[in-house]
Amino acid sequence: LQSRLPAVGTTVFTLMSALASEHGAVNLGQGFPDFACDPRLLDAVDAAMRAGHNQYAPMTGLPALRDAIAAKAAALYGHAYDANTEITVTAGATQGIITAILCAVHPGDEVIVIEPCYDSYQPAIALAGGVPVPVAMRVDASGYSVPWDAVAQAVTTRTRMIVVNTPHNPTGTILRQADLDALADIVAGTDILILSDEVYEHMVYDGQPHASVSRHPVLAERAFVVSSFGKTYHVTGWKVGYVAAPASLMTEFRKVHQYDVFSVNTPMQAGLAEFMRDPAPWRDLPAFYQRKRDLFRAGLAGTRFTLLPADGTYFQCVRYDGISDLSESAFAQWLTREIKVAAIPVSAFYSRPTESGIVRFCFAKKDETLALALERLAKV
Amino acid sequence: LQSRLPAVGTTVFTLMSALASEHGAVNLGQGFPDFACDPRLLDAVDAAMRAGHNQYAPMTGLPALRDAIAAKAAALYGHAYDANTEITVTAGATQGIITAILCAVHPGDEVIVIEPCYDSYQPAIALAGGVPVPVAMRVDASGYSVPWDAVAQAVTTRTRMIVVNTPHNPTGTILRQADLDALADIVAGTDILILSDEVYEHMVYDGQPHASVSRHPVLAERAFVVSSFGKTYHVTGWKVGYVAAPASLMTEFRKVHQYDVFSVNTPMQAGLAEFMRDPAPWRDLPAFYQRKRDLFRAGLAGTRFTLLPADGTYFQCVRYDGISDLSESAFAQWLTREIKVAAIPVSAFYSRPTESGIVRFCFAKKDETLALALERLAKV
Ligand SMILES: CSCCC(=O)C(=O)O
Ligand SMILES: CSCCC(=O)C(=O)O
Repeated sequence: LQSRLPAVGTTVFTLMSALASEHGAVNLGQGFPDFACDPRLLDAVDAAMRAGHNQYAPMTGLPALRDAIAAKAAALYGHAYDANTEITVTAGATQGIITAILCAVHPGDEVIVIEPCYDSYQPAIALAGGVPVPVAMRVDASGYSVPWDAVAQAVTTRTRMIVVNTPHNPTGTILRQADLDALADIVAGTDILILSDEVYEHMVYDGQPHASVSRHPVLAERAFVVSSFGKTYHVTGWKVGYVAAPASLMTEFRKVHQYDVFSVNTPMQAGLAEFMRDPAPWRDLPAFYQRKRDLFRAGLAGTRFTLLPADGTYFQCVRYDGISDLSESAFAQWLTREIKVAAIPVSAFYSRPTESGIVRFCFAKKDETLALALERLAKV
Repeated sequence: LQSRLPAVGTTVFTLMSALASEHGAVNLGQGFPDFACDPRLLDAVDAAMRAGHNQYAPMTGLPALRDAIAAKAAALYGHAYDANTEITVTAGATQGIITAILCAVHPGDEVIVIEPCYDSYQPAIALAGGVPVPVAMRVDASGYSVPWDAVAQAVTTRTRMIVVNTPHNPTGTILRQADLDALADIVAGTDILILSDEVYEHMVYDGQPHASVSRHPVLAERAFVVSSFGKTYHVTGWKVGYVAAPASLMTEFRKVHQYDVFSVNTPMQAGLAEFMRDPAPWRDLPAFYQRKRDLFRAGLAGTRFTLLPADGTYFQCVRYDGISDLSESAFAQWLTREIKVAAIPVSAFYSRPTESGIVRFCFAKKDETLALALERLAKV
């Protein structure tokens, strides 16, 4: 069998999680919380199951959940998505991403991705028959930024889509209004679509706003915006997310969605719809994670790692050039084996070999977990 | 936005379920049970959630669930799948089907499908860049059968895969050993792969065996075999299924799976793994549904519908040529509106207009539901 994805191996998340458990390392690699979700959310799912909500949900998602998503988008971003025609519940954000790509990208179309980036984008583009066109972020002493001039130069007549991600995994940077305007200048007057991965939308710190593409008229009218309940409610294993897009795009999205997964877990959707009646959990999330970020950064400040800015996500990137000249991958493995703290090499988020001397830690962990990791990292 | 799937509208299941609820019809259309699952299964899921199993499962599925699947395949079909390398848990059977197709079918490859067939196969093939090659089943007074001579004639040097489905949706027929042998004769000595949709594997009646492709050495070595927990355990809305295949095929399957959904709902997987420790639920399923089938057939025998054989699945096909000369779609809508019993037109499972004067009823319903439907159908 000739491979459709010859370059793909096992994801770095799986590899590093396995290595972490093999070596009894504190796992700050793969991004997931090690603490419990709100028990009221479990109560709501259990109640839905006991009430018999165990058969196929509507293909587009439970109406109550789509309504709750639309209400949140209106409240937060001032964008009135129509819950019936512009929102679809997905089996996690990853399924939303590949579905948006499969429905929009025709064989030979080019899709611009900004590296480092989440590892599913480029295989999804390849499966659609598209051609990923990577543009590298700039990285210097002040951190990562998107070189919009380079993005503009990468545009050709074949460009079908540009993928953006804010807050950004793995770098922890965020886009700002000026970034969205720069992107809008690039696509205005073209038929280029936007795929905006905003799964960390509720993790933006220091009082800064989340510059959702939904806010920006020029971008929103051509954008698939992806989010994740797993990230927001500490249940990454439930695999429920959603995509919002103008009706004309959503019609095409749903054609693919109905033949990709058809529908999404009914009791989880019912439980999430019930739980979303209370806005406090997502409203409180920035403060919750900012505390952990500050605690983790304060601890790292006493080590030989150099901190990069962490404006959003639950990731903290650090330089280790004062410690080692190993490659990122070798250094992450060494950290896991010898120091017993697992990290993710940022090089894993590039399609071409790229070494920046930077690894990523996940701070979505109990305070004790972070304290133990910091104690070990202080010994480096 | 130019459509990747221009021919696709909303699925017939969604349309008929909507029409049924609009007209207060008994919904014997979309295939799902209207009765509760075993409460022990809900207990097991709830226990998993409370124990904190809410983060990403391994990409391939929970080991305990893969072990249980492998043990069942060994017990039932004498096929020793390796749980680590040959089984992957999917977000429902539909996601398993598109993943098998995306990983194996290259642009321009032909895939033979046998119509009528489940409506996801051909859009999935199109998304992979492949060309669906439909072969029509034979249908006469004794029911539906697969014309293997026509399948053999449809094979070309571009044929990459043949999709089979047993027990068969929508017709309720099953493949037998002679069918598998005929298929094996066609593919032996070629590199044609098999995709075998066996989601109704535990619904085969009158003491007949399920002729799983897993049993057949020539076929199993080149087959993706798909199954569904939703169908077996009365929880179609949970969207958990699995695919079994030889390791060399499964390696490619997983490359696509990890970028399609990455992983599948953790508490549902944990609950299913626990529940599968007891083989009684799947072992008792043929008798459970055979009783319903017999009850439904006995009732229909007193109506003006003509029964087709129903050897497997939870579907009963009937001819209505003694009643009406409407098209299948028009007749199904008339039944729903006027008689208040929803059915599915078999024509919806063909890519080209095909009228056989046959509609499909789902008998996975409470005895009272079936009784009410029969009372209404008797008036036709
Ligand atoms: C889907 S596993 C990866 C989780 C994640 O988003 C990350 O760690 O970057
Ligand atoms: C995924 S909805 C359709 C359910 C089903 O398999 C059927 O009714 O044929």
